[in-house]
Amino acid sequence: MKKGRFSFQLLKHGGEGRLGRITTPHGQFSTPAFMPVGSQGSVKALAPVDLQEVGTEVLLCNAYHLYLRPGTEVVREVGGLHRFMGWEGPILTDSGGFQIVSMSALREIEAEGVRFRSHIDGSLHFLTPAKVVEIQEELGSDIMMVLDNCPPYPASPDEVTAAVRLTTEWARQSQQAKGDGGQALFGIVQGGVYPELREQSAHELLEIGFDGYAIGGLSLGEEKEITFEIAEQVLDLLPANAPRYLMGMGTPEDILTGVRIGVDMFDCVLPTRGARTGLLFTSAGTINIKHACYSADAAPPDPACGCYTCCNFSRAYLRHLFLSRELLAYRLNAVHNLFYYHSLVRGIRQAIAEDTIDQFTRKFFSQREDITGVEGGDTVC
Amino acid sequence: MKKGRFSFQLLKHGGEGRLGRITTPHGQFSTPAFMPVGSQGSVKALAPVDLQEVGTEVLLCNAYHLYLRPGTEVVREVGGLHRFMGWEGPILTDSGGFQIVSMSALREIEAEGVRFRSHIDGSLHFLTPAKVVEIQEELGSDIMMVLDNCPPYPASPDEVTAAVRLTTEWARQSQQAKGDGGQALFGIVQGGVYPELREQSAHELLEIGFDGYAIGGLSLGEEKEITFEIAEQVLDLLPANAPRYLMGMGTPEDILTGVRIGVDMFDCVLPTRGARTGLLFTSAGTINIKHACYSADAAPPDPACGCYTCCNFSRAYLRHLFLSRELLAYRLNAVHNLFYYHSLVRGIRQAIAEDTIDQFTRKFFSQREDITGVEGGDTVC
Repeated sequence: MKKGRFSFQLLKHGGEGRLGRITTPHGQFSTPAFMPVGSQGSVKALAPVDLQEVGTEVLLCNAYHLYLRPGTEVVREVGGLHRFMGWEGPILTDSGGFQIVSMSALREIEAEGVRFRSHIDGSLHFLTPAKVVEIQEELGSDIMMVLDNCPPYPASPDEVTAAVRLTTEWARQSQQAKGDGGQALFGIVQGGVYPELREQSAHELLEIGFDGYAIGGLSLGEEKEITFEIAEQVLDLLPANAPRYLMGMGTPEDILTGVRIGVDMFDCVLPTRGARTGLLFTSAGTINIKHACYSADAAPPDPACGCYTCCNFSRAYLRHLFLSRELLAYRLNAVHNLFYYHSLVRGIRQAIAEDTIDQFTRKFFSQREDITGVEGGDTVC
Repeated sequence: MKKGRFSFQLLKHGGEGRLGRITTPHGQFSTPAFMPVGSQGSVKALAPVDLQEVGTEVLLCNAYHLYLRPGTEVVREVGGLHRFMGWEGPILTDSGGFQIVSMSALREIEAEGVRFRSHIDGSLHFLTPAKVVEIQEELGSDIMMVLDNCPPYPASPDEVTAAVRLTTEWARQSQQAKGDGGQALFGIVQGGVYPELREQSAHELLEIGFDGYAIGGLSLGEEKEITFEIAEQVLDLLPANAPRYLMGMGTPEDILTGVRIGVDMFDCVLPTRGARTGLLFTSAGTINIKHACYSADAAPPDPACGCYTCCNFSRAYLRHLFLSRELLAYRLNAVHNLFYYHSLVRGIRQAIAEDTIDQFTRKFFSQREDITGVEGGDTVC
């Protein structure tokens, strides 16, 4: 697979959904792309060999987590993040702007950066935008994210105005700090649920200029309709020739909707978190493997699925593993869920290529309704 | 691989250690053999594909655990234990005699069987020797173990005398209950640390006649010298043409010692339990991956090892995963530990075949002493 400096090739656009290819120092991946989350340098319960098997082309790690533990120095000494975690493909590192706000005690946002206590050992840290770029360069990820300022939801227009101002200033410092290693740096559009602030944020970032643009600060509690209204507004402001990344979303439905309005990249903990809580994503809807109705069910989680889990194990076995707290449960569930997500995204790409995204969408929802049409929820059984 | 009714072929004996081959309805395995423990129908943190890769030929499940959860009925409905857990090779099921004593509340040993409360939900159960055979036949394991009566250590001669009497009577009932499905049934020699009771137990079981003989009730707290004295005494009483299984042991050293006195089969939770506590078995001794000395160590756990873990990951990464409580830690550690155990046993078999078991033993211990010759313990670093 071709490796090289970061570049984005837009293969198809103009209709609903875009097709592209991103080249990085560690190979290429097709867009739309779903990135499994491996915050601490491991996609929970999965080894690199599993990721290859389920169809992962690019994954996400978190600079904040890795900076705190094991420390940037350790990763560098062992040969960089790819060598460290045994993953040879592209890696995007999130800056941790969101995690510092959501996980750390005693965080103080200052003009120069953010002061916080580690959620692991309480140690004091001060990170500047330039330092966060330096960390990601030392980790050696392929796509770096700027340190942004993401206020919690709900936040007043004044709070969000201040956050956008800081996000722009930090983005400028990040771009200045960036070396010439062939890694990409993405800006992050903030602005909460306020269209005019989103517009300001997007324009200011475009003026600085980045390799790609992310939409941050969504799916924090606002109505899903608003999420996609804001996302669509921002997408319309972004240039066609740069990749667009909708951060931290989402459900299979979110991904289909996001692609149709023009998103190229997604990440979400849902498939791996669901694996650990017993939720399995299937073409017929989401099933809860703990349910008693599966206790002697010899069928695989999704009879239409070709993953290792579905080819070898029954719902009865997966339920037994889960109830017995066997570690294998989380892995087999994660293998299935990620295989499902990647298959979904592959299917969407094919539909865009063939101009059949409308049919694809109808089929996607009708299959789910057929079986999930039970009162009170979208969970089968 | 040849499948068929249970049989044991003794390929070499007379010196230190025996070589054999066991045929079962689900294929053959070589002896001496190490059986990973998958009590609940899963070798902790590993999938069948891993077991194949690390060299597992036969594994152990536990009838007591599977009877309680998910229930024999469920396993049968889904197609039997092999199908249920996706393992096509030979399976030995332990009866659970030991687990009922060690795990259950309110256990009452009666002449007809044992009454106990489930350690899972407190439900009341009464299991007879015949019922335990029936459970194992329904599970469809290849080698079944009789329900035995294993008193805790220490126990008085009177207590052990009574336990031997019951064990013999139950063994007789088990043999009578057994159908003709090609599955094997092993007797279990009890008798605590009392040579005359061990002799009585062995003679009575031999009189009934079993497909193989296990030595139970050892390694319960007695001195290791006594363990092997008793084991050796019992082995001398057993016929050469039946397999001998030393239950629940042990360390790499135990296995080497056990083989040299004539044991054919071993099981132990140590490699998988060690994986979950950060202990890695290596040719240089046991290392504790949590230790700070590994924090930036780019070497694999055992540079001499060819397992997936050692071929792809550093001690620094494994330490990071463990300290971060990443689920992948337990799997990568288990892959390495079982690969080590199976490689050790393969090496022992080769040494027996080549009449070099003395040299093998010297090398085994000298490699460990070279590096573990630090004060106060056998743990490297």
